[in-house]
Amino acid sequence: MDCEVSEIVDRLLDSYKEVGGINNIDCSNLPSKQAIGLACEELLQLLFPGFLDEGAVASTEIALKTTSRVAHVITRLKIEVARSLRFKAKNGGDQSEAARAMVCAFLRQLPEVRRLLRTDVEAAYEGDPAAQTFEEIILAYPCLEAIAIQRVAHVLYNDGLPLIPRMMTEWAHGKTGIDIHPGARIGSHFFIDHGTGVVIGETCVIGSRVKLYHGVTLGARSFPKDNEGKIVKGIKRHPNVEDNVTIYPNATILGGETTIGARSTIGASAFLMKSVPPDTLVALEEVEHKVRSKTNHQPSTNDKTGA
Amino acid sequence: MDCEVSEIVDRLLDSYKEVGGINNIDCSNLPSKQAIGLACEELLQLLFPGFLDEGAVASTEIALKTTSRVAHVITRLKIEVARSLRFKAKNGGDQSEAARAMVCAFLRQLPEVRRLLRTDVEAAYEGDPAAQTFEEIILAYPCLEAIAIQRVAHVLYNDGLPLIPRMMTEWAHGKTGIDIHPGARIGSHFFIDHGTGVVIGETCVIGSRVKLYHGVTLGARSFPKDNEGKIVKGIKRHPNVEDNVTIYPNATILGGETTIGARSTIGASAFLMKSVPPDTLVALEEVEHKVRSKTNHQPSTNDKTGA
Amino acid sequence: MDCEVSEIVDRLLDSYKEVGGINNIDCSNLPSKQAIGLACEELLQLLFPGFLDEGAVASTEIALKTTSRVAHVITRLKIEVARSLRFKAKNGGDQSEAARAMVCAFLRQLPEVRRLLRTDVEAAYEGDPAAQTFEEIILAYPCLEAIAIQRVAHVLYNDGLPLIPRMMTEWAHGKTGIDIHPGARIGSHFFIDHGTGVVIGETCVIGSRVKLYHGVTLGARSFPKDNEGKIVKGIKRHPNVEDNVTIYPNATILGGETTIGARSTIGASAFLMKSVPPDTLVALEEVEHKVRSKTNHQPSTNDKTGA
Repeated sequence: MDCEVSEIVDRLLDSYKEVGGINNIDCSNLPSKQAIGLACEELLQLLFPGFLDEGAVASTEIALKTTSRVAHVITRLKIEVARSLRFKAKNGGDQSEAARAMVCAFLRQLPEVRRLLRTDVEAAYEGDPAAQTFEEIILAYPCLEAIAIQRVAHVLYNDGLPLIPRMMTEWAHGKTGIDIHPGARIGSHFFIDHGTGVVIGETCVIGSRVKLYHGVTLGARSFPKDNEGKIVKGIKRHPNVEDNVTIYPNATILGGETTIGARSTIGASAFLMKSVPPDTLVALEEVEHKVRSKTNHQPSTNDKTGA
Repeated sequence: MDCEVSEIVDRLLDSYKEVGGINNIDCSNLPSKQAIGLACEELLQLLFPGFLDEGAVASTEIALKTTSRVAHVITRLKIEVARSLRFKAKNGGDQSEAARAMVCAFLRQLPEVRRLLRTDVEAAYEGDPAAQTFEEIILAYPCLEAIAIQRVAHVLYNDGLPLIPRMMTEWAHGKTGIDIHPGARIGSHFFIDHGTGVVIGETCVIGSRVKLYHGVTLGARSFPKDNEGKIVKGIKRHPNVEDNVTIYPNATILGGETTIGARSTIGASAFLMKSVPPDTLVALEEVEHKVRSKTNHQPSTNDKTGA
Repeated sequence: MDCEVSEIVDRLLDSYKEVGGINNIDCSNLPSKQAIGLACEELLQLLFPGFLDEGAVASTEIALKTTSRVAHVITRLKIEVARSLRFKAKNGGDQSEAARAMVCAFLRQLPEVRRLLRTDVEAAYEGDPAAQTFEEIILAYPCLEAIAIQRVAHVLYNDGLPLIPRMMTEWAHGKTGIDIHPGARIGSHFFIDHGTGVVIGETCVIGSRVKLYHGVTLGARSFPKDNEGKIVKGIKRHPNVEDNVTIYPNATILGGETTIGARSTIGASAFLMKSVPPDTLVALEEVEHKVRSKTNHQPSTNDKTGA
């Protein structure tokens, strides 16, 4: 080892001692990002059998294949869940039994998740004129991936498991650009078209048959602070969206007390921080634009070029 | 196998029987997501030789390397195309001859795609002050990847092939955040800067020398429904953008009858649902903002802080 | 080889001769995208020891592990840096000594980068009510990855190295949707929540304790052209953001002379092209929306539904 390498290493080792909080040295093992990503892929295969394999699955082999996959997922997840439980318990001893029980309880809920995902595929088919078949939606619509992973992560979130649910939805966020917190409660027949830039916060409550377009934010307004000036954690911060609402691209809806009433439509780029009653259409007023011909270089009067 | 695993498997198998539409069991094989991703990577290597390999390619080895790659792509794609054709024909027998013919016809068009991509690289260089060399653009600009894949997917889309063109553009969407439907018709010298959040719909027609920034939507307005309340599929829903138009970040342009006339400029965050004539500048009016000093806590009068 | 393959190959080889500028044949080797991606992963492991491995690192093994990793990164990066230097020097001979020196100088700065990243993790914890632990932030917040890579790429950018810094930040952009140019100068305690769609331009100067939300653009306004109509490269084009500023989702701030004064707050979807003084609150005026009940089909008067 030449002296330069040795100097670099020494500086890094010093830094590991001095700069705390971003090292994980002599601690319990944390869940592995890579393992969580692989578990997400395996869960998607269990949820949509025959779609994400090399080919269709024959009914004669489905029992064997499913058994093998379930065994695989249990093996992988129980390690990661045990790490997450030890982290929660601040290194409280062996968590492998508790982890196995939590993983099994979680997997028993996959059929219920599948029932919801079936309605999400239907909603995509009915909601997008470009969608030609269910198969196209499952193979090529990023929202299916993001919603499926959020629905499974939500089960683990409800069990109080730290770290892993959020790592799962971030795995999907990285692949799809759709950022749904595992805490959000989402009804059936949920569709997000295109999806990039969608943000759905932790305390959102979304009804059934809701349709969002890309860039929609269901976010927080501002954060109350405690006496020490620290942000208060754990209160309702994000909107409610009732059944049959459609929200067009890049609309921003903020606040924990904001409710979008059933059957309402929110137009593209709208910006809302208070509730609207059921059956409401909210659209940006014709936006004031300067419209000017570039050829005669005379500023025209303002024109309304929007809705 | 312990009883818990066996119970989980039984519940899943029951679910596979009960919840239809999201299983691919005893069906024809569908195209593989993984294989389509690998084919996209191989096509990019054929389109930009020497850029995406471990190193430059010597002219003495280029013939051999290209032959090997073309043979590879044919082998991979003909399997996937055959699956897609069988799916289209509803399991209509052996499609391997038709698939091979379609793949070869497709590959014969790569030189034409390369001619277009050369103009796209030029447009990026001329359009972005941060771009220092062609090499930087090909190695580090996500738009090149998204546009190259859309241009090849568009060839297969025009051949009427289902599933695969959309899977290709979704592969690029996942990597770049740029969502261009394979159906969109796009002229030469096309540049998208940054790119995240761009959505270009299926029936868009885009001229030459068009420049878009991130977050631009060329989308649909609303969807006519038939007598049964189902969305009508297959009509013109997305805008036309004529030659030499520039559209700044987060502008939203909607509707199949909306045309942005040649040489026009659309400002950041603009929102348009009707046509503008050639040589027009559309910019958001100075937006009304509340501007208030936080220090004296007196609300100031409104100020116009925009353009 | 059948005649179809041979025809496709011939057409491609002809195209490689005819269409220049997008081939890298008989040139110097360019940096490899794949190698740069792997180097980014290794650098993240050095920056956050024990977080991105399969498990925590014991203090007894940390010296050995760090040495091995540093040696690895040097080996990988010196090849790529040498390619980049040869490209810069237009094939100017052997650059391996210069490359090794640059890589070592770069790695000696990692402790300083770690000091900054520690403040970024703190800022995320203090800025997001959903964040429960530092560990969750390092494992699941995309901004950490994007900012860490930008901070290391910025070191190489300052050394005048072409191609690689931009390839690094594009690697992070592809994974996170956060596009920060390696040239941007960013102070301590920097936090980006959610992140998708954020664009930070090359000549931005950002103070300390700045917090951005997804979709925020710190971009250029327009580009002066020279006498030949070519864009002038290398001038200050992007905004300054002073200390303690918060910018909410989808706000767009443009122009090299635009400065957001210290302690100011910029509201969601705001659009600014001129400076605001310190301690200013800029929020979209209550936006004019058409609000109409869908049930009685009578257009209501306009309502202000915004802030």
